[in-house]
Amino acid sequence: MPGRPLTKAFRNKTRLEAFSDGVFAIAITLLVIEIAVPQHAGSHLLDELVRERPVYLAYFIAFMSIGIVWIEHSALTEALDHVSEGFLRLNLLLLLLVGFLPYPARVMQEYLSLVDTEHGGERTAVAFFGIILFLMSLMLIVLGRFAEREGLFGDDAGEERQEDNRVKYQLAPSLIFYGVATVLGFIQPYVGLVLYFLIGMYLILPIRTVRRWLGRKG
Amino acid sequence: MPGRPLTKAFRNKTRLEAFSDGVFAIAITLLVIEIAVPQHAGSHLLDELVRERPVYLAYFIAFMSIGIVWIEHSALTEALDHVSEGFLRLNLLLLLLVGFLPYPARVMQEYLSLVDTEHGGERTAVAFFGIILFLMSLMLIVLGRFAEREGLFGDDAGEERQEDNRVKYQLAPSLIFYGVATVLGFIQPYVGLVLYFLIGMYLILPIRTVRRWLGRKG
Amino acid sequence: MPGRPLTKAFRNKTRLEAFSDGVFAIAITLLVIEIAVPQHAGSHLLDELVRERPVYLAYFIAFMSIGIVWIEHSALTEALDHVSEGFLRLNLLLLLLVGFLPYPARVMQEYLSLVDTEHGGERTAVAFFGIILFLMSLMLIVLGRFAEREGLFGDDAGEERQEDNRVKYQLAPSLIFYGVATVLGFIQPYVGLVLYFLIGMYLILPIRTVRRWLGRKG
Amino acid sequence: MPGRPLTKAFRNKTRLEAFSDGVFAIAITLLVIEIAVPQHAGSHLLDELVRERPVYLAYFIAFMSIGIVWIEHSALTEALDHVSEGFLRLNLLLLLLVGFLPYPARVMQEYLSLVDTEHGGERTAVAFFGIILFLMSLMLIVLGRFAEREGLFGDDAGEERQEDNRVKYQLAPSLIFYGVATVLGFIQPYVGLVLYFLIGMYLILPIRTVRRWLGRKG
Repeated sequence: MPGRPLTKAFRNKTRLEAFSDGVFAIAITLLVIEIAVPQHAGSHLLDELVRERPVYLAYFIAFMSIGIVWIEHSALTEALDHVSEGFLRLNLLLLLLVGFLPYPARVMQEYLSLVDTEHGGERTAVAFFGIILFLMSLMLIVLGRFAEREGLFGDDAGEERQEDNRVKYQLAPSLIFYGVATVLGFIQPYVGLVLYFLIGMYLILPIRTVRRWLGRKG
Repeated sequence: MPGRPLTKAFRNKTRLEAFSDGVFAIAITLLVIEIAVPQHAGSHLLDELVRERPVYLAYFIAFMSIGIVWIEHSALTEALDHVSEGFLRLNLLLLLLVGFLPYPARVMQEYLSLVDTEHGGERTAVAFFGIILFLMSLMLIVLGRFAEREGLFGDDAGEERQEDNRVKYQLAPSLIFYGVATVLGFIQPYVGLVLYFLIGMYLILPIRTVRRWLGRKG
Repeated sequence: MPGRPLTKAFRNKTRLEAFSDGVFAIAITLLVIEIAVPQHAGSHLLDELVRERPVYLAYFIAFMSIGIVWIEHSALTEALDHVSEGFLRLNLLLLLLVGFLPYPARVMQEYLSLVDTEHGGERTAVAFFGIILFLMSLMLIVLGRFAEREGLFGDDAGEERQEDNRVKYQLAPSLIFYGVATVLGFIQPYVGLVLYFLIGMYLILPIRTVRRWLGRKG
Repeated sequence: MPGRPLTKAFRNKTRLEAFSDGVFAIAITLLVIEIAVPQHAGSHLLDELVRERPVYLAYFIAFMSIGIVWIEHSALTEALDHVSEGFLRLNLLLLLLVGFLPYPARVMQEYLSLVDTEHGGERTAVAFFGIILFLMSLMLIVLGRFAEREGLFGDDAGEERQEDNRVKYQLAPSLIFYGVATVLGFIQPYVGLVLYFLIGMYLILPIRTVRRWLGRKG
């Protein structure tokens, strides 16, 4: 690769990454703009902010979910040697889901936040959010398999292939996790919420790194 | 090109791509923020979400339309050897349309979504959206022709020239398609909407890739 | 330069450009989200959209103004050999103005759009917008001079120095233009608006390119 | 480094920078969209705009605070030789805070702006904002230390190590500053606000550069 740094295929990939990074970055940053500022709270502002706990939790979960998909997407495209037009288009379907996630996140914030709302919408809100997370994980796997069939990973099968397998096999459990969490969330919304949180923490915590780090110290 | 990776002209192009990618990515991601969250739906949230069907369709169509223009724009600038200041300025006019699309998309969402609205605005809304799509396709062709006249494609006429032709000739039909869909949309809004959807699906589905893929299997 | 493509200084510049491009792209794309969708217009939607003419004009002017500053900023950083931390910080002040422009643009849209508003705010709105444009032009010149004094343009004084001069001398008139337009806009808002439009058209139209192009044909 | 410009590690870092730049750029540009346009001010528009002084100050402070963290983050990743997956994840936590900052900024704008509001919320608003600034500074230091332990700075310890130390030692005071400002802000909100402003000015003004520049003149 170093020998032909700016071949057609490579540039193409650069552009795909730039556009995808843009969509991921915007979707993840838009999550904040719908958190409502307490109105006319006066000296009760602190209480009002504390009461918004579930909204912050929903924000945290949505942020981490998009962040994880970005890391996985980053690992996948990193392993690619080049991209095809078909890949660009499938990637667009993944970005459609990423760009859409702020909507179920907002629905969830709305139906978990209002203390004075009539109850009943939480189940739908939590399950709706879970379905989009599930589809995002699914599309990542589809992208990985498409790249493999199209031979986009190039010839040097060593490290790259490993990445590919990683995407294929590591994501499969997250697919099952999100499926289960969605179904449980529809039955018991707060159970679903806690599961999304735990999946997020499991995927985000650099467990191996931390263990290695601790090991070096001990 | 590999011999002089960071010449003046090339860097210039990089910057154009980065800025354009930014505008495309933001416009495509902003589409979601105007989808209204059903208020006080309580346990009827699911019904309310299902009733928003046309809004999701409008979102899907707008997302795919911007996505396709991004792919075409990406193919065009990929084929360029360098850019001129005139190209930067014409490109700005294309980005003006891309950045504006969320507005007709919102108008369309508004006039297709509200079940309880007085009818009559759908025709205008669908045609308004179509006109911007038409102008976006037109500007892409203008950009391609400008690049050709200015000699921005460089000397190695092989693959690059092919890309140029692709932009010129493949886009011409999409121009006609969007023109027809806009006119029909003004007469029968849902016909226009279905046409935008079909044009989007036709342009987004990696038909040749899928066929090749299936062929390899069979 | 080609000999040391990824030196410290160069990478630094790349990062500055990426961040600046992001802010420019977002500011320019945010302009659209505040254009109000006519509510309950029913079959009068077309009339309502046509009545929003001054809002579209304000959008166009704001878009082109940011676009032009982006082109100038792009030309300036292109000419740089490397950047210093002082340059990063001054650049942040320019981005502060770029990121702020959507606010006066919104104020202008609000006070030019509402047909049924009590009049009187147009003058302030148009002048407020002009002041920010004026400051943006000023900051660009300050950035250019700072870069020159700090010796950021490198040694190969040929083309780069030319760019530097271009930024210094071509922007000076635009500074005067915007100053005059702001003052006139405070006296006669629509005169100011037309002047912003004309300055924008003058700066955006690739005049020399078009002339050269026409000349080649004739 | 110049010898292997596109190794695995380097590309990875590029992607991290692009995504981070995106989040920083969006968060910093989103700050403007919540500044309310005075409604129906008519010919009193100028007075109304002037009355919004504290809102502009809050905008300025928030913009500069994110800008400074961007410069520090930029200096840190610049000094890195490569990144690890653990670093990507910790970085995501920093971006979570960056992406969240527009919310406390909005709360602060709301509770400092409304002249006719019942008072009492300013203290909480100013302290809330300060806590997030404090956590952002903290996360930057954590990121720097993590990078050092993981050996991400590479072997050429000269300039890079210096950068690392700069991040470690220069940021420590800003951590203390923000901590003190937050506590004081909770007691006397406007004192806190002035302190955020002074910290911002101190960090943003290219003091050494200006001194060197003046010295060259004298």
